[in-house]
Amino acid sequence: MALKKKPVTGMKDILPAEMEIRDYVISMIKRTYAQFGFTSMETPCVEHIQNLNSKQGGENEKLIFKILKRGEKLRINEAREEIDLVDGGLRYDLTVPLCRYYANNANELPSPFKALQMGNVWRADRPQRGRYRQFMQCDIDILGEASNIAEIDLILATTTLLGQLDFHNFTIRINDRRILKAMAAYSGFPEESYDNVFITLDKMDKIGLDGVAVDLREQGFAQESIDKYLELFKLITPDTKGVETVKERLGGFLDPEYADGLITIINSVEAVKNADFRMAFDPTLVRGMSYYTGPIFEISMDEFGGSVGGGGRYDEMIGKFIGQKVPACGFSIGFERIVMLLLERNYQVPEKPQKTAYLLDKKLSPEQIRDAVSSAMKERAEGKAVNLLVMKKNKKFQKQQLEAEGYTEFKDIYADALK
Amino acid sequence: MALKKKPVTGMKDILPAEMEIRDYVISMIKRTYAQFGFTSMETPCVEHIQNLNSKQGGENEKLIFKILKRGEKLRINEAREEIDLVDGGLRYDLTVPLCRYYANNANELPSPFKALQMGNVWRADRPQRGRYRQFMQCDIDILGEASNIAEIDLILATTTLLGQLDFHNFTIRINDRRILKAMAAYSGFPEESYDNVFITLDKMDKIGLDGVAVDLREQGFAQESIDKYLELFKLITPDTKGVETVKERLGGFLDPEYADGLITIINSVEAVKNADFRMAFDPTLVRGMSYYTGPIFEISMDEFGGSVGGGGRYDEMIGKFIGQKVPACGFSIGFERIVMLLLERNYQVPEKPQKTAYLLDKKLSPEQIRDAVSSAMKERAEGKAVNLLVMKKNKKFQKQQLEAEGYTEFKDIYADALK
Repeated sequence: MALKKKPVTGMKDILPAEMEIRDYVISMIKRTYAQFGFTSMETPCVEHIQNLNSKQGGENEKLIFKILKRGEKLRINEAREEIDLVDGGLRYDLTVPLCRYYANNANELPSPFKALQMGNVWRADRPQRGRYRQFMQCDIDILGEASNIAEIDLILATTTLLGQLDFHNFTIRINDRRILKAMAAYSGFPEESYDNVFITLDKMDKIGLDGVAVDLREQGFAQESIDKYLELFKLITPDTKGVETVKERLGGFLDPEYADGLITIINSVEAVKNADFRMAFDPTLVRGMSYYTGPIFEISMDEFGGSVGGGGRYDEMIGKFIGQKVPACGFSIGFERIVMLLLERNYQVPEKPQKTAYLLDKKLSPEQIRDAVSSAMKERAEGKAVNLLVMKKNKKFQKQQLEAEGYTEFKDIYADALK
Repeated sequence: MALKKKPVTGMKDILPAEMEIRDYVISMIKRTYAQFGFTSMETPCVEHIQNLNSKQGGENEKLIFKILKRGEKLRINEAREEIDLVDGGLRYDLTVPLCRYYANNANELPSPFKALQMGNVWRADRPQRGRYRQFMQCDIDILGEASNIAEIDLILATTTLLGQLDFHNFTIRINDRRILKAMAAYSGFPEESYDNVFITLDKMDKIGLDGVAVDLREQGFAQESIDKYLELFKLITPDTKGVETVKERLGGFLDPEYADGLITIINSVEAVKNADFRMAFDPTLVRGMSYYTGPIFEISMDEFGGSVGGGGRYDEMIGKFIGQKVPACGFSIGFERIVMLLLERNYQVPEKPQKTAYLLDKKLSPEQIRDAVSSAMKERAEGKAVNLLVMKKNKKFQKQQLEAEGYTEFKDIYADALK
């Protein structure tokens, strides 16, 4: 078979210019999150197919890259369906593996466990511009902390990071899964159809209140419920007053503690934030994954249409591994989107080392090469970046190219000069 | 299906203590190699099955984790062998993908291209202690540089890194594939059996000269060839004098330039090195992969039985992708082994930030929580690491655990004290 030069469909080669930004963002993530008490951890990229297919992943479970069984376990002739052929898959997110990891290692982990994960995930999505089938995720999670301190810490850590990466004027939209449900209950929607109601609600920013009304009507919901539901959204302001309104209106449908928790989160973050953003209560925020159980949040930026990250509380998921409930809350930043935005605005990584190129005459003797290398080693020991290159015929062009790569200093070393 | 708590067979969860070492080694790798002019790059973890099965990877091709075709392309009923079911696989090294990457992106890359790659690779090896089926590789390669400057630069960069990670008294063993071949030719072995001769030679450190003699005899080689061959090894000293001996002895069988090149590499590195190691000419060094075409090298450490890294020149491989020869040379350090050695000697990462834990009374009011968070944010802005934790009933035990995690400062915040 002929060798293929292109990467596999939907995945990409990363060129040095993008890598420089990625490496910088990674270093800022590690530094900033460490200051908030998060510790790095890692799970294998390959996960048991049973765990990936456990209904935690929603739509992502349809997009798994599956791994063929090996050796005697693989029986092609007897296989009838996919599951007969595979025993693993590439992880589609970092949350399912995190819960498995915690279940497997809880005895050796602190409580609460504040985890930082950076790693690739894979989804066999239809290839499209700017979306890839392999992409980096970056999650922070706090496992074992039931109080709102977890949400506050996660939001402050994430927004501090974004501020340090020079993002301004963004919004953290926040809601609570339990408020979502209480609003649907208050309006009289049947409980088994909540998910359908939320799928429609999720389109509010695109189709507006009227669009949502039409959509709900077409699904056959009672007009009274629809009217009562949409009336709520008209009343609610995108701030703590809005949360107060929800608390008053929903009366017996909502434990007032949940509203108070949301107010505490919003007020605390607003009071101590050190980046340029605002908190906004958004009762239309749904977040796709069904595993969320409490507060949910998402980062919106005007310069980017969609979400640049999000997260929330998922207190039930670890219990599915160990049979015992462990409170959990996480925030995932859209690493690839952040890198894309930085590339688009031609972001310059600060504190680059000075880069020097030695251009060595082809006629240098072994002793002269040694002297040149020796001089380079001394400069490197002083913290400089020195590249040793053989001088090309068109030296001027060579230097132009090196300047484009960020080289600012050149040393031409000729055989004659060193004699 | 029940959820599984353990990682998949042969792969591992990485706990925070090991991650701290890994993150530190990664940061040192990036910093040191950047000083030598290497730039980061990345390829997808998934590679075309055709490229992985192209006979570049030797034994590793038998260990590929293969990825099932998706959608209409997967026809389970018609499938007769593995290749009918799969279209991709997880990369088993970084060299094959690097060559594909260079072939695909050469127009956008500098020449020579000095690449730094860090990434996971996967091999379905028999699980055994200390060897995992997913492991990190860290390669530097210089593509487009035919002169020995490439080898010198690669060896100096690698040894500088090892020195900075506090490794001492190690050896870089060096040989040349063309010397290997010339020695076999000089001794009269038939060319088609060189690989078998080298497989036996590779065992020299375990079975000794006599063992090699027996092994070669059992394979049916002429006694005269065996005697002539082993006589050479008795003559050769592990230094540049040894290379001189080879050059004189092998006469017409070896282009003297190759011996001179090796001498230049050894002398240059010895003259300018800034780490505690020695260069040793080792005519028994083989390096498994058949793609090597020139100098080959390997790191030996007394504290670790086997190799801690290795590399060499492979001038023919990129040509298989683009039909045009591009000189190439690389050095791969055994990232996992280095991490293991550092863990074993209880290595302490230098320059850790000071870690402070705030222990918050459960009875704090929202305003008091806000004040505590505000104080933490100020300390973080000053560069400290501050963790916000809810105070547990057994505060003493909680602090002991935090001390074990590296926390040195504690602030107990009570509801009463803050009123």
